[in-house]
Amino acid sequence: MGSVLFSETMGTALLVLLGCGVGANVGLATTKGYGGGWLLINFGWGLAVFAGVYAAAYSGGHLNPAVTAGIWIAGNEFAPGIAATPWHALVYVAGQLLGAMLGAVLVYLAYKKHFDAEEDHSGTLGVFATGPALRTPNWNVVTEAIGTFVLVYVVLVFGNTPTGLGPLAVALLVVGIGASLGGPTGYAINPARDLGPRIVYALLPMGRRQGADWSYSWIPVVGPLIGGAMAGLLFHVTPVVT
Amino acid sequence: MGSVLFSETMGTALLVLLGCGVGANVGLATTKGYGGGWLLINFGWGLAVFAGVYAAAYSGGHLNPAVTAGIWIAGNEFAPGIAATPWHALVYVAGQLLGAMLGAVLVYLAYKKHFDAEEDHSGTLGVFATGPALRTPNWNVVTEAIGTFVLVYVVLVFGNTPTGLGPLAVALLVVGIGASLGGPTGYAINPARDLGPRIVYALLPMGRRQGADWSYSWIPVVGPLIGGAMAGLLFHVTPVVT
Amino acid sequence: MGSVLFSETMGTALLVLLGCGVGANVGLATTKGYGGGWLLINFGWGLAVFAGVYAAAYSGGHLNPAVTAGIWIAGNEFAPGIAATPWHALVYVAGQLLGAMLGAVLVYLAYKKHFDAEEDHSGTLGVFATGPALRTPNWNVVTEAIGTFVLVYVVLVFGNTPTGLGPLAVALLVVGIGASLGGPTGYAINPARDLGPRIVYALLPMGRRQGADWSYSWIPVVGPLIGGAMAGLLFHVTPVVT
Amino acid sequence: MGSVLFSETMGTALLVLLGCGVGANVGLATTKGYGGGWLLINFGWGLAVFAGVYAAAYSGGHLNPAVTAGIWIAGNEFAPGIAATPWHALVYVAGQLLGAMLGAVLVYLAYKKHFDAEEDHSGTLGVFATGPALRTPNWNVVTEAIGTFVLVYVVLVFGNTPTGLGPLAVALLVVGIGASLGGPTGYAINPARDLGPRIVYALLPMGRRQGADWSYSWIPVVGPLIGGAMAGLLFHVTPVVT
Repeated sequence: MGSVLFSETMGTALLVLLGCGVGANVGLATTKGYGGGWLLINFGWGLAVFAGVYAAAYSGGHLNPAVTAGIWIAGNEFAPGIAATPWHALVYVAGQLLGAMLGAVLVYLAYKKHFDAEEDHSGTLGVFATGPALRTPNWNVVTEAIGTFVLVYVVLVFGNTPTGLGPLAVALLVVGIGASLGGPTGYAINPARDLGPRIVYALLPMGRRQGADWSYSWIPVVGPLIGGAMAGLLFHVTPVVT
Repeated sequence: MGSVLFSETMGTALLVLLGCGVGANVGLATTKGYGGGWLLINFGWGLAVFAGVYAAAYSGGHLNPAVTAGIWIAGNEFAPGIAATPWHALVYVAGQLLGAMLGAVLVYLAYKKHFDAEEDHSGTLGVFATGPALRTPNWNVVTEAIGTFVLVYVVLVFGNTPTGLGPLAVALLVVGIGASLGGPTGYAINPARDLGPRIVYALLPMGRRQGADWSYSWIPVVGPLIGGAMAGLLFHVTPVVT
Repeated sequence: MGSVLFSETMGTALLVLLGCGVGANVGLATTKGYGGGWLLINFGWGLAVFAGVYAAAYSGGHLNPAVTAGIWIAGNEFAPGIAATPWHALVYVAGQLLGAMLGAVLVYLAYKKHFDAEEDHSGTLGVFATGPALRTPNWNVVTEAIGTFVLVYVVLVFGNTPTGLGPLAVALLVVGIGASLGGPTGYAINPARDLGPRIVYALLPMGRRQGADWSYSWIPVVGPLIGGAMAGLLFHVTPVVT
Repeated sequence: MGSVLFSETMGTALLVLLGCGVGANVGLATTKGYGGGWLLINFGWGLAVFAGVYAAAYSGGHLNPAVTAGIWIAGNEFAPGIAATPWHALVYVAGQLLGAMLGAVLVYLAYKKHFDAEEDHSGTLGVFATGPALRTPNWNVVTEAIGTFVLVYVVLVFGNTPTGLGPLAVALLVVGIGASLGGPTGYAINPARDLGPRIVYALLPMGRRQGADWSYSWIPVVGPLIGGAMAGLLFHVTPVVT
């Protein structure tokens, strides 16, 4: 399982490096992409998935505990030759969390002087972790669950309708989910993508940073897991092309 | 036909969830994507089609009565092994309308607090149903018919020029139709996508909402059906690669 | 050759309908896409090519006299089984010009009330035909020749490096040429795309329209033909994967 | 090796023509794309890679000394049948630098009158060569190394996970790197892309141009080579799908 751990770690590191990277580019006041708009953020995260899934081809490119959960509940293998077992799931999630933290450190290094130059640190947490536009925990959970349901359900369907798109399919799906369902909570739709960088943010030696908003941190974990589980369940009754 | 009903319902629900979702994100004043621009809307709807067609692969991913009509008139099967019959057409359209209503409810849930927070409800109908920039019923029908003609004609042509794109081809086509022909009427180009969410809007327990503009509601039904039928007819004389 | 004529006419009509359509959407003051930006225009034209090339698959989807010229000079067939002869070239170009005019009429119909509502007609020609940002005929020819060279040369190269992209490859290429080389002249890069709609504009019953700028009209014809011919010549010495 | 030289020269010329072209379109005040935004720049460069890699299919489409270095260190052939030798590497890099200079000249010609019309030449260097948002050489090297690491590592991974995307995969990867990691330094991520046009800028007969910022010029050479080398090394321990 060392190769799976490497694969998920590396893929999720690239995912978070490019994903949180677009957040830094759009959100930090001294960059060239400052204020670049929502579609730029959507493409940044989508293509972050693209790079990450390619890099994690060996392990099937989950990069997301909600995807791992959904695949498991759907009754599929994690990847060709890798059975869905509790131990394997633990390795996947460990790699995802580790990779997300590693990616967050790399974003910090790539934008180091821009974090230093930030006058107002009210937005720096947003580079790393999601936060709600309107703070209403139950509805924030609903939004994250719906967004993640779409992600995991369609990813499960991809397996039954092969095209030549490869990882591009899930990349475009994530562009679409961000464009359409990211408005209320910033679309974590992935527990590792949110929790890993949030931990790193709390530990980083940034001078005047704000808190890591731990009171919100359970929502991008619980919401996506609910959505992923629902997708796995519904997939059992979905008609497939034979 | 239970599987066809499931497939079209699920696919159209995803289409409308992501499609009307981008409308909510761009149109509601408290979201993170507010004011995100026309190209964001175009990609949101295009990738909504992408997700929906994948999810409805079993039934051929019509998701649109105008597509079903065009395929029928063109003389094709609805999907491999599913003949074009009046009964099957009814199942397709029922699933499309049901799915569109389901998708609209999900959009409402995903953006619940943002609908609640909306000071001015003059734009909330626009999240669910289309409306014209200039209200001139006959010309609005013309615009919807032209846009839907492009959609259905090119979808019919896809069947004769296979690539590795799969559902991405129709997704990109919809991005293009929105960018180019969406200016006058907001490109319904699909009776179910407009009528289903309009019905849901009329029934939703939103406090201060406006009316559902029923006087316009026939246009995004009639225009697309005319366009789809014309595409099916013209396809009969289109030379194909042999 | 009736099928070739149909195919090129239909494909170029779709190209110009969607291409000039995005110009109308962005340029006319009463549409929903007004002021949508350069990237929206680039995607609109790129996906116009996408739809048009699919629709004209039978004839190889030239849609552009500069492409026909480049293929001819490169020594290729116009399409599988269709030799490059003067008579066939005439049919191709006739279909392209006819289709471009038909597409321009359809744009006018789709946006009819928006043309009527336009207070200031200084921009309506720009929906149909290109014009220079800085009017310097010789340099405008250079820019159009360079842009068209890129188009035709890479299209010729596509033939030797098959992928699963099909018409998407040329669509993306046109997005790129527009983004990168469209700044000085609005990237006609296609004599039919410019001349056909310009003729239609001159004939349309729009009340207060401006002139059709005939003094500029030779540039989007001559520049692209030079660029296409250069591409065809250079292709002869280009090493190919064997 | 004449064919390799031609191929890399031609491909890199197209890369720089379209890449620096979007810089000219967005950055020069008299163009139609002026102020078009970061996402437009990202797509312009990404599709520049798309066109360039197709045109250089014969030589494997490196177009970038950091890619050549990474492939070499990874232990791969430069292209099918072309061994990784010092002499071949020299031919690749010579073609890349030559092509980058040729592309820069073509950009100058395509936008000639717009360079002439530029009142304020403080931005014209930025059309050709990259510069930092915040000038801190060591951290600028870090940012370029991280961005290039992502580019080369994922390109190496592409070789083990074939899809039907062909050159589109690397094009989208470059869109993503630009969106996410381009904020601090403008993402050269390619020594030839930066140095070649910088030399041309220094030699061009532009009247009032600024200096070529030679003090920065080593960073977009050294940073990318470090990143490419790290990618090649890490690829040795990356698990691959068998």
